[in-house]
Amino acid sequence: MNVPTLNQLIRVLQQVPYLASKNVYKVAHHFLNMNDEQLAYFCQLLLRAKENVIPCSICFAWQERETSCTWCTSSKRDQSLVCVVESWQDLLAIEKTEGYKGLYHVLGGVVCPLEGIGPEELTIEPLIQRVSSYPSIKEVIIALSQTAEGEATATYIARQLVSLDIKVTALAQGMPVGSSLEGSDRLTVYRAISDRRVL
Amino acid sequence: MNVPTLNQLIRVLQQVPYLASKNVYKVAHHFLNMNDEQLAYFCQLLLRAKENVIPCSICFAWQERETSCTWCTSSKRDQSLVCVVESWQDLLAIEKTEGYKGLYHVLGGVVCPLEGIGPEELTIEPLIQRVSSYPSIKEVIIALSQTAEGEATATYIARQLVSLDIKVTALAQGMPVGSSLEGSDRLTVYRAISDRRVL
Repeated sequence: MNVPTLNQLIRVLQQVPYLASKNVYKVAHHFLNMNDEQLAYFCQLLLRAKENVIPCSICFAWQERETSCTWCTSSKRDQSLVCVVESWQDLLAIEKTEGYKGLYHVLGGVVCPLEGIGPEELTIEPLIQRVSSYPSIKEVIIALSQTAEGEATATYIARQLVSLDIKVTALAQGMPVGSSLEGSDRLTVYRAISDRRVL
Repeated sequence: MNVPTLNQLIRVLQQVPYLASKNVYKVAHHFLNMNDEQLAYFCQLLLRAKENVIPCSICFAWQERETSCTWCTSSKRDQSLVCVVESWQDLLAIEKTEGYKGLYHVLGGVVCPLEGIGPEELTIEPLIQRVSSYPSIKEVIIALSQTAEGEATATYIARQLVSLDIKVTALAQGMPVGSSLEGSDRLTVYRAISDRRVL
């Protein structure tokens, strides 16, 4: 197809998760069919989001620049509990259960040597610092994917925390093995966070 | 969630086809995780595509501004055949079969009174004009979705063309009923275009 600008757009869209090769043409078509104002608004919003949405310096969830973090500064949340999740999306999956009222810590992934992700790529060190400097934290719930990498990361974090005299728990094994948190149904996630077990 | 810019971004992304509500958070996360250059490039590319990619004035497929249409001006394509498709994506589905070497005409949809899409919203009138003014065109293949609306649109177009003494054909009924062209496998599309029937 001899439409270079369109080919370039398709190539960039292919890097966006969940746009499989068949859907990518429909998405490109959608953008080309927008009117100029809509597309300018979309781009403006992307750039503004990139500028204004930053990770919280304590929990690493996305927050609006110049405002305080929704989770860390809420007086309604239990300051003694910290739930460690892989990503912001996993945090939202737990929030949807309405069964958890503690704080969060977004890890940024799991340790995966094959993909070159070591502990230093994640926010494990800031988590240890956080637990040491806030004596209000009594329990750390490790809510990672039920995969080999997730389990290994959970064990790694638990070992780091053991010297701090803190209760470390993990999601109940009610989660189907091999599943991701984000893709699970509400009730399964709710059960898993209610039945958390001591590591 | 008290991150207004992020909420706005989610709302705009939800309008993009194939980004179901669960995926939309992953996509937002993807954009926020891009570095500044990557995101600027993405936005620049979208705006440039919008500016430079226009519908061909003859066949209405996307083409690069200032260059000639890939399909209409190719000397390798059979100028006596015009295949009428709903969208650019359907055109690409036919190209992928490598079993068709004629020209195209992109309709922009099918007639659907319930959604307020009448014949005047589509490029039916330009198609009739095109067939009248190019005596080289001997056959029009109507390759629309095998749905009630697609069939009705095919019949409407066939009636308009009947006075022009032209052969009007449609895709073979080998296509599964209720399916869309874009979603079909290569071989089914190939059989359907080979076995086209006279209307």
